[in-house]
Order: sequence, then structure tokens, then C-alpha cells
Amino acid sequence: MNASAIREILKITQRPDVISFAGGLPAPELFPIEEVRAATNAVLDRAGAAALQYSTTEGHPPLREWIGAQAGIPASNVQIVTGSQQGLDLLGKVLLDEGDTVLVEAPTYLGALQSFQPYLPRYVQLPTDDGGIDVDALEEVLKRERAKLLYAVPNFQNPTGRTLSAERRQRLVELTAQYGVLVIEDDPYGQLRFSGEAAPSLYELGLQLHGDPDRNHVVYSSSFSKTLAPGLRDAWVQAAAPIIAKLIQAKQGSDLHTPTLNQMIMAELVHDVLPRQIERVRRAYGERAQHMLRAMQAHFPAGVEHTTPQGGMFLWLTLPGGVNTEALLPRAVERQVAYVPGRPFYALGGGENTMRLSYSNATPAQIDTGIRALGGLLQEALTA
Amino acid sequence: MNASAIREILKITQRPDVISFAGGLPAPELFPIEEVRAATNAVLDRAGAAALQYSTTEGHPPLREWIGAQAGIPASNVQIVTGSQQGLDLLGKVLLDEGDTVLVEAPTYLGALQSFQPYLPRYVQLPTDDGGIDVDALEEVLKRERAKLLYAVPNFQNPTGRTLSAERRQRLVELTAQYGVLVIEDDPYGQLRFSGEAAPSLYELGLQLHGDPDRNHVVYSSSFSKTLAPGLRDAWVQAAAPIIAKLIQAKQGSDLHTPTLNQMIMAELVHDVLPRQIERVRRAYGERAQHMLRAMQAHFPAGVEHTTPQGGMFLWLTLPGGVNTEALLPRAVERQVAYVPGRPFYALGGGENTMRLSYSNATPAQIDTGIRALGGLLQEALTA
Repeated sequence: MNASAIREILKITQRPDVISFAGGLPAPELFPIEEVRAATNAVLDRAGAAALQYSTTEGHPPLREWIGAQAGIPASNVQIVTGSQQGLDLLGKVLLDEGDTVLVEAPTYLGALQSFQPYLPRYVQLPTDDGGIDVDALEEVLKRERAKLLYAVPNFQNPTGRTLSAERRQRLVELTAQYGVLVIEDDPYGQLRFSGEAAPSLYELGLQLHGDPDRNHVVYSSSFSKTLAPGLRDAWVQAAAPIIAKLIQAKQGSDLHTPTLNQMIMAELVHDVLPRQIERVRRAYGERAQHMLRAMQAHFPAGVEHTTPQGGMFLWLTLPGGVNTEALLPRAVERQVAYVPGRPFYALGGGENTMRLSYSNATPAQIDTGIRALGGLLQEALTA
Repeated sequence: MNASAIREILKITQRPDVISFAGGLPAPELFPIEEVRAATNAVLDRAGAAALQYSTTEGHPPLREWIGAQAGIPASNVQIVTGSQQGLDLLGKVLLDEGDTVLVEAPTYLGALQSFQPYLPRYVQLPTDDGGIDVDALEEVLKRERAKLLYAVPNFQNPTGRTLSAERRQRLVELTAQYGVLVIEDDPYGQLRFSGEAAPSLYELGLQLHGDPDRNHVVYSSSFSKTLAPGLRDAWVQAAAPIIAKLIQAKQGSDLHTPTLNQMIMAELVHDVLPRQIERVRRAYGERAQHMLRAMQAHFPAGVEHTTPQGGMFLWLTLPGGVNTEALLPRAVERQVAYVPGRPFYALGGGENTMRLSYSNATPAQIDTGIRALGGLLQEALTA
């Protein structure tokens, strides 16, 4: 499996006979179709041709302002991007030179590795446990390595579903500030907490530490894809002014601007539809996660470890050593169930005995059937 | 002026008191607002949640198929991109290594230079005249230089409005094939011809030469931005399968996919609305170009040379040597008229005495007032 693993797996996902826990797809039955229709009509009524014209590279001003107000920062610290994937790509483009050292969680989000790859960084993996990045290990790495940036998904991480603890967040922000390492905090799932208590974002902690959004060494990336709908590709980056200036220039060369109509639709939806939608999605994913955890308890053999997410879309399995989840995938698909093998999520390899399961886009019945099939397969693999 | 010249000029454009011939903006009063509304409603009725879900990196199949059918090639040779700016960026990413030699027209499209810049190519300028690229000069360059690719806008070029003649197209395609140089044909304006006769695209000539879209050394880039509306950011690239495969991988890292909703809307519009729209835009821009040429005749001093476009949105002025159009721009804006100085369109400098005028987004009355003001300024500059 190479960098296009996710894409190939999304193809399997499309086969109607396969129950897929593979793709990181939001539940489409929760999408606010009628609200998007109403917002589009309102935008075309009010803005008319301006909704179909070129617009500024920075983004639609009311949308930037709303995002800035939520974060307690000026709109000028917000760059609208075409999906958070573009945010990561542009950050790679403006921040990374060939050979720069990038610290990543082990495992980390595969899409970020794909975004950074063209800029040829050198990765150092940070060990993680159920509390997220091991910050003592981070300190050792920072002493040893001249790192340029640290990339992390602190909330309900993709792929593990784990969350970085509040104490570790504080220490991570202080350590990276002390060693002059930029942080990219990727937070597409933060709003989707269904249990436990929210911890402050790294971005907020950076803001507290420096007292000025233009001195914050934490860059924040998020998106409306998981809370509202991915097909509009509305996402954003929050960063200090010098980084925003570079992002604007890079984005101008990359796609000029995010579609005008899509930004205006989102500016309509953020006020009333988005909060309702977040509640809806949160409740549904919490139920699905519970359902999957219960099904795993019923159908999985002993020795299979799993994470217990407090939000988001994913959980992570670790099988007893020796079981290779890539080798097992074709047999799973034969039994009409799919997952993502864990290895591609490791920048430097490892995790052959791990896999990612997504519960966001499966009904309770599909979860039962799929987890039962997967459990049978794991049973066989473990006793083989 | 640096790479963000266009962006800064677009800001001037937004001042309501300035008549701007600067921005390359389509006429918004021609946008098919009600048709976009109807298409959106039809898409949401029919596709429902699928219109708001993630989709494939290659693009929405019916849109790819329609584009392929128009070009007489399979859909698999078409990659949908988020504005043709993204097509150029991705092509730069997958085709260019640092120091690669890229042949460009002098002058050339500024946005292409911005797209390619992160990949650090070395530019060689090709001389042009009213028939486009001087192909004898091209042959000399090809003998001398080990070029990787040639980038050209053969129809109603941005910035000059010039069109490459049919004979030269044939020769350019043969020469580049012979010397193993890839061609990127950027054609956002080709459909907007309002006088003269259409010549075959370089892509078509390449297809004839090789007899197989997967062996064509010409890559074609186009867009719905100038024919239908730029705010949707729907555009595409046609290329041989090995290049498409690389584009898919690069696009996956860049923005995963072009917004689903926007592609579905376009797939609705291409059948009936697009052809009507092309007729409308063509007629309007033809009238505006005529009007600007007449106004120039009435108000410009002797010695100012201009191109006479047969389509598209731009024409190009060459002033008698010694007049610097960058230095003149603030004085023009004082008189409430704006243009783009020519120098940034030259990859290696030059053109200090040139400027680009756009007639697409100005009424006849604005053209009269703006050209009269510009004529007065040029008169002063020439007699100073």
C-alpha cells in the first residue's frame, strides 16, 4: 500500500455489498439538504451575480469574521481554504523546505503525510498512548532534533480516536514554544465530542501564552466537512499574520480562491443550522460508537485491544503481534467488511498489527453484521 | 510589483469610483443566476445527500464524460480541477523539478508563472508577434535548450489577446514532438471567439499526430469560469493516462476533490445553458471589444500600438519606448481608470512600456469615459 491507499479503499467502500468501516465518511443521512437548498436560494436572491463571480483569495469576509469571532481573533488571522486538505498542502508549501524535520504522532493522519510529501520533509515519530502524545518523549526528541514543526490531531485523532489530555496539551505548547517549533493543530472533529470533558485547543493555549494571535506559534486547521457537509469543501486555517500572508500568496497560485458560492452558503448556515447540526451529529456518532464497542465486546476474540473514543469518527484496534492487517484485508472484503490497515498511518512504518475502524457511516444493523464478520475473521487469524 | 500584482490590482478594481480595465473579470450581468438556481435545486432533488458528500478525486463521472465526449477522448483522460489555476499548479507539481527549463511566451499569463514558481523552473522566453509564438525562433530555442515543457495560451492570449495562427500551431506541435517537449495548452477563452475563424487546438493536433490520447504530448487546460461563471471553480485538464495518474495523486494531497455540489451543478448546465451562455458572452464581448477599439481610435495619441483580438477578454497596448506603465499607474488611478502594467507578464522582465486592458467587465459608457481618461494621460506622458 502506498500513498493512494485511502483512495483505493474508498473505491471498495462504494461496492454496495461491502459494509465499510474503512472510509472516513460522515453520515450522509444527517446532511442538512433542505437547509443547504434554502441557503443557496437566499444567497442567490441577495448576492446575485456576486455569488458566481471571482472573489478574494483570503475568503468571503463574513465567513472569516464569524470564524475569527468564534476563536476570539481578528478575521485577518483566518484563511479560508478548499477543504482542510488544502490547508495542510498550503502550510506544507509555505513552511517546509526539503529535509526539514517534522514531528508526527505514531500513528498520524495519512492525508497530512500526503500533503507534506511533495516538500520532502524528514519525519520523526512521537510515541503515543491513550492520553495522546507522550510529552516526556517529546521533550527528549526536542532536545535531540532541530525540528521545524510538529503536526498533531489532538481531538479524537484520525486514525486512533484518541484525545490529548489537558495537562499534556499545556506541556506540549510550552515545550514547542521553548524550542522554537511551530505546531500545526489539525482539528476537524473537535466539535464532535459525545462523552468526557473538552480540553482547550493547543491554539487557545498558544494564544494565552503569547497574548497575541500574531505571535502564536500554534497554527490551527479545521473544517465544516465533518460537522456540516464535506461536499462544499469549506475549511479554514487560523495563523499569525506572517503565515497568513504566505498562505494567501500560495493559495493564489493554487486555486485563486475557494468557490464563492460555497463560502456564501456556509456564511448563511453557521448561525443557526451549524449548531443544530453539531448536536445531531454528536448524538448519532456517540450512539454508533457505543454500538460498535458493544458489538466488539460480543464478537471479538480476547487479545484484541481497542481505543475508546470520546468523540469523532474512529477507533483503533491493535491485534496480538504477528497478525498482519494488510494481508488480512482481502479476506475481510471477501466477507463483505472493510477497514483501513494501520501501517500507512505511520510515517516511518510500524503498526502492521493495527487497523482503523470508522463508525460514523454505518447503521446499527450494519455495525452488528460487519463487526460479527470481522470478529470471525480475527478469531481465525489468531488461532491460525 | 511582484507576484501578487494581480491581487493588489483586483483590490483597486473594487473601488466603485475607478473604471477598471485591469481585472480579468467576466461580465457578472451575463451570469445565468436563475439557471444556476434551477440546477442546484435539480441536483439536490435528484442526488440529495450525495451532492454534499465526499466524491472521487478524478471528478464527477457525468461531467468528465461530457468533457471527454466534446474532445473525442475517454473520460479517463479528463481530470476535474478547482479552477484552471489548480490545473496549472498540479501540472507544475507533477511535471517540474527544480531547474527544469520551461518555455513561455513573452509576455505570458502571470498566473501560470505564479503556479509554476514554487517548483523553481528556469524560464526561457519565446518571442511573439501578432500571429503568436514565432515558431522559427522556437526551433532555434529547441535546438539550443534542453526544454522540459512549453506553456502557451494559443487563443486570445492573456495578456495580449493574440491568437496563434493555424500554420504555426501545426509547426509548434510537430517541433515539440520532435524535441520531446511537453506542451501545456491553456485555453480558457477558446469558446469566446467573436470574429475570424477558429483554428484547431494544439491538443487536437497532438491527437492527430499520435492517434492516441495516451501518447499525446499536449496537455490541455480549460475552465467554465469564462464561459459560465468563475465562482463555481469548475475546470479541467485533458492529458495522457500517465499524467492523469500523477495528477490524481497530487490533487488528492492538494484538496482531495473539487466540490461535489459544484460539479453536479455544472453537469446540469453543460447541455443547454452552456451553449446559450457562450453565444451571449461571445456577442457581448465582441461588442465591447469593438467599442474599446473605436474609443481608442478617438482618444489615444499617435504612436500607441494595440492588438486587435478576435475573441476573449483582453487587448494589449505598446507605448513608444521610454513610457513606463508601472510608474504611470498611480496617475491613472487618480484619474479613476485602471489597467495592468505589462512587465509582470514577462517571465524574465521587459515590457515596461506595455499594458493589458480588459474590455469584458465594462459598459460602453464606462469604456468611453475610461479610454478618454487614459488617452488624456497617455497624451501627457508622451509629450512630457
